[in-house]
Amino acid sequence: MPSQPLKILVIGGSAAGPKAAAKARRMDEHASITLIQKEADLSMASCGYPYYIGGFFDDRNQLICTPAGIVRDPDFFEKAKRIEALVQTEALSIDRDAKTVTCRHLPSGETKTLPYDRLVIATGASPLYPPVPGSDLEGIRTLHSLGDADALRAVRDAGKVTKAVVVGGGLIGFEVCEALHLAGIQTTVIEKTASILPFLDPDLAKLVENHVRSKEADIITHNGVAAFLGENGKLSGVKLDNGTELPCELAVIAVGVRPNIELAREAGLTIGAKGGIAVNDQMQTSDPDIYAAGDCVECRSLITGEMLRAPFGDIANLQGRVIGRNLIEPGSASFPGIIHTGICKIFDFTVGFTGLSEAAARAAGFDIETATVSGLDIPGYMQGKLLISKMIADRKSGRVLGFQCIGPGDGSKRIATVAMAIRGNLTVDDLSNADLPYAPPYSLALDHVIVSAHVLENKLLGHMKGVSVTEVKQRVDSGSNCFILDTRSPQEFEEMRLGIGETLIPLGAIRGRLDELPADKDREIILYCKISLRGYEGAAILQAHGWTQVKVMEGGIMAWPYPREK
Amino acid sequence: MPSQPLKILVIGGSAAGPKAAAKARRMDEHASITLIQKEADLSMASCGYPYYIGGFFDDRNQLICTPAGIVRDPDFFEKAKRIEALVQTEALSIDRDAKTVTCRHLPSGETKTLPYDRLVIATGASPLYPPVPGSDLEGIRTLHSLGDADALRAVRDAGKVTKAVVVGGGLIGFEVCEALHLAGIQTTVIEKTASILPFLDPDLAKLVENHVRSKEADIITHNGVAAFLGENGKLSGVKLDNGTELPCELAVIAVGVRPNIELAREAGLTIGAKGGIAVNDQMQTSDPDIYAAGDCVECRSLITGEMLRAPFGDIANLQGRVIGRNLIEPGSASFPGIIHTGICKIFDFTVGFTGLSEAAARAAGFDIETATVSGLDIPGYMQGKLLISKMIADRKSGRVLGFQCIGPGDGSKRIATVAMAIRGNLTVDDLSNADLPYAPPYSLALDHVIVSAHVLENKLLGHMKGVSVTEVKQRVDSGSNCFILDTRSPQEFEEMRLGIGETLIPLGAIRGRLDELPADKDREIILYCKISLRGYEGAAILQAHGWTQVKVMEGGIMAWPYPREK
Repeated sequence: MPSQPLKILVIGGSAAGPKAAAKARRMDEHASITLIQKEADLSMASCGYPYYIGGFFDDRNQLICTPAGIVRDPDFFEKAKRIEALVQTEALSIDRDAKTVTCRHLPSGETKTLPYDRLVIATGASPLYPPVPGSDLEGIRTLHSLGDADALRAVRDAGKVTKAVVVGGGLIGFEVCEALHLAGIQTTVIEKTASILPFLDPDLAKLVENHVRSKEADIITHNGVAAFLGENGKLSGVKLDNGTELPCELAVIAVGVRPNIELAREAGLTIGAKGGIAVNDQMQTSDPDIYAAGDCVECRSLITGEMLRAPFGDIANLQGRVIGRNLIEPGSASFPGIIHTGICKIFDFTVGFTGLSEAAARAAGFDIETATVSGLDIPGYMQGKLLISKMIADRKSGRVLGFQCIGPGDGSKRIATVAMAIRGNLTVDDLSNADLPYAPPYSLALDHVIVSAHVLENKLLGHMKGVSVTEVKQRVDSGSNCFILDTRSPQEFEEMRLGIGETLIPLGAIRGRLDELPADKDREIILYCKISLRGYEGAAILQAHGWTQVKVMEGGIMAWPYPREK
Repeated sequence: MPSQPLKILVIGGSAAGPKAAAKARRMDEHASITLIQKEADLSMASCGYPYYIGGFFDDRNQLICTPAGIVRDPDFFEKAKRIEALVQTEALSIDRDAKTVTCRHLPSGETKTLPYDRLVIATGASPLYPPVPGSDLEGIRTLHSLGDADALRAVRDAGKVTKAVVVGGGLIGFEVCEALHLAGIQTTVIEKTASILPFLDPDLAKLVENHVRSKEADIITHNGVAAFLGENGKLSGVKLDNGTELPCELAVIAVGVRPNIELAREAGLTIGAKGGIAVNDQMQTSDPDIYAAGDCVECRSLITGEMLRAPFGDIANLQGRVIGRNLIEPGSASFPGIIHTGICKIFDFTVGFTGLSEAAARAAGFDIETATVSGLDIPGYMQGKLLISKMIADRKSGRVLGFQCIGPGDGSKRIATVAMAIRGNLTVDDLSNADLPYAPPYSLALDHVIVSAHVLENKLLGHMKGVSVTEVKQRVDSGSNCFILDTRSPQEFEEMRLGIGETLIPLGAIRGRLDELPADKDREIILYCKISLRGYEGAAILQAHGWTQVKVMEGGIMAWPYPREK
């Protein structure tokens, strides 16, 4: 036991800060640990806000309670963890020479200066606002603080708002959209870029768009907010870049966050190129006695090696724990980096991603192959639900670089599975022979992840040539001379079809009807079925009979995001 | 195109055989492919039988249909895949010199001899019977063939059987138990060894036992079947090794399978030490023109390097696909081996495992550490459900060797996650910082898998000393002098407690009540709470105050499988 207890100061009481403080306490009962928190609450389950707003549960305390039902207030921190938590207290400045932090108690205005041996900066991030007129009107909010959650829940409970706009088509934007929709509010999501959910490639994003519209929420892409419109200081509508005006009484801004780095910058700590506080693998800033974690730092991509910002609650907790260990035993723990994994419930769809998207992989300079695959999560006789996914691999090494998965099926399990595969630097071949848990309540005999790897392997080996639904649409729109072949049954064709000039020849009839195919063996032929498994089998037949430009529309009709004939 | 098409012969039409044949067809449109199948049906979804019997679905065709609803009969194989399927045809012998197989059409008795260039043996396995009197009574079945499924479904539909016994407490035994229970039949599972579900360590198996009993199905362990009792050729009961007689009208035997290796052995192919056909990584037998896959072969453990038998449907499919490639392009594909992953629904519990159990790891000579962890799958405010798991790692390298997970929560995702981690040779440290998909509908901020790794890391680093519920029970039963400390709240204690002589001091009060703890600082103190997180925090406090033998009861009350006081 040291004669003088270690003095630990933690700035930030949301995720990374309390985690670092609690872990340090478990490592050293005798340290002096003080937590400075600007807000009134501590350790808020902020990722739960949309579900509170949407009425998934009604007891607000669940957002700030331990699993045993105790509110995580300063008294709890003192009693259970012997951590002094100073709430409603803002850290004003760090004096690195004196090793002190000056802070102000916001209600009283009193300032005090606290000494530290080791300091943790977990100041988080602040929501961005579009720089347009009218942003200060009443009725415009973000969803960042518990106060925001309270306000939006009050909107639900009051039941007066009828129309809302969500600005920003990312994860939080759609979580808010669903919550407002569940509150009976007609909601429109506005996205400035051409495609929602930037971590998804546009083919899959478009399918999510269709799903949201099927729930009678609206989405406007490729159109930013030009101004917020108001009457008597209250929001009355949103004007878009193209001049459209959308009347609404509520607007929720979800266009991203900027890291809170002012304290660190003013203290002379190094800021990284991506705008976050620079830290090493031990989460140490440029001052070895100061650590930083969470939304305010940059961390390393384990795939590209690049530094990036990853404002995710789970990452903040992991980093906080690493800091907790290093506070007591410097150098004992490392945070290796992230692969960029995330997930979101959007109405009946699960939307998840891990690693690089196709676009991101190309931008990073990888020579890649991709496979888009549709299929059930569990057998049809067990009421399996659809998953549509894209797997991305490095063409030369076969290393899996990314995976996106959407649909009503259990995508969460598949994202977690591939996230670990990426973490383990596994290849498509490794995934092709993965030993995953199989029983009908949980999986197909060959799980969706394995089938995805098989399709990707078939493409890497040249056994299958794929074409995306977008490319097929472009061919059709441009009047391409390609021959389009639907290989399903006449009954399936009758019930639903694309109507893009396709010919129907069921798989089982193809060998007997080769004379109905183009005489020009070099003409492009594109095959598909419901999920394009039969399409692939048909393609193998045609290739064997001499057609040279045979391709499979990946994911089949289930992945087709454009209007159909029926 | 070769002038003479390749002649491929496949023996076995269930999983591995049709997969190999179909993959070969996709690789080579011109090969001659013939499938020999002893049963009348092809490509049966045999893992779905228990759910058909249990009434999860009623359309039997779903067990033998493609996802598009076409029955996989010889006509389908001919039309869609140009594979000649000879059903109700038994392969009698292989002449490796002549490269022929002689087979008999069972209904007609006609034999014929078919030539091959390359042969696939996928003869599967046959159910074992306990070698006891009365095994031929009417009313005794296995669940292996579609005929068995039909017979057991007919039992459900007739509604006359009131009492059944399932012999064998493995995966299939409990799937059958649930199915019969759902049919309104009072069911008892008989297990010869001391513990059900041999892939689980006994602590967790005992919790599954309790769950099954809570559903009013019964389990008798440590007691085999001595005889089947009958009247007029019909089963009337089962006599156990200890003399107990259980009246029943139905007994289902599920004590494992033996590989069908007679054909291979008689053809002189090498049989492995574990009783399966020996194959190399390319699934090639000792004859390079003969491949084998599925329940009849041995494969390699990627963890221990040992050969073992793994009669699982998913593995058979993976191996079949590898063979399909090698049939057409010899040497082009490998099956690396398995890590031993499986899962089973048992009433409201998911029961899964991957890699080695604690017992298996010790038996294989590993120096291991384990962590048993209880926790929710998703947040309480999202109606999270309990998971109880055990993670096993090599003490020196930190490499994860195994994981078991049971409970009403989503264990399937966690098993798949750890299965990939094991496949990637990841360590506890890697899993401690895993980047998994987090959002409240899918996970806690730190997923159960990550928390399990954290606890295991704490144990490996010596930050926490654990003791299993079994060890605590033994201490209590033997009158050990240990001091047992429950760190929950008085309210929780009032609602439910172990009643094993424990003292209640809530975590938040411990620091102020150290004088109530043993004066002898070397006395063993065992702490716990509901899941033993607060127990762990309390242990850190006591250690810091000089107690030397402080341990945490892993998994807490949730992992306690023995009777409680209330």
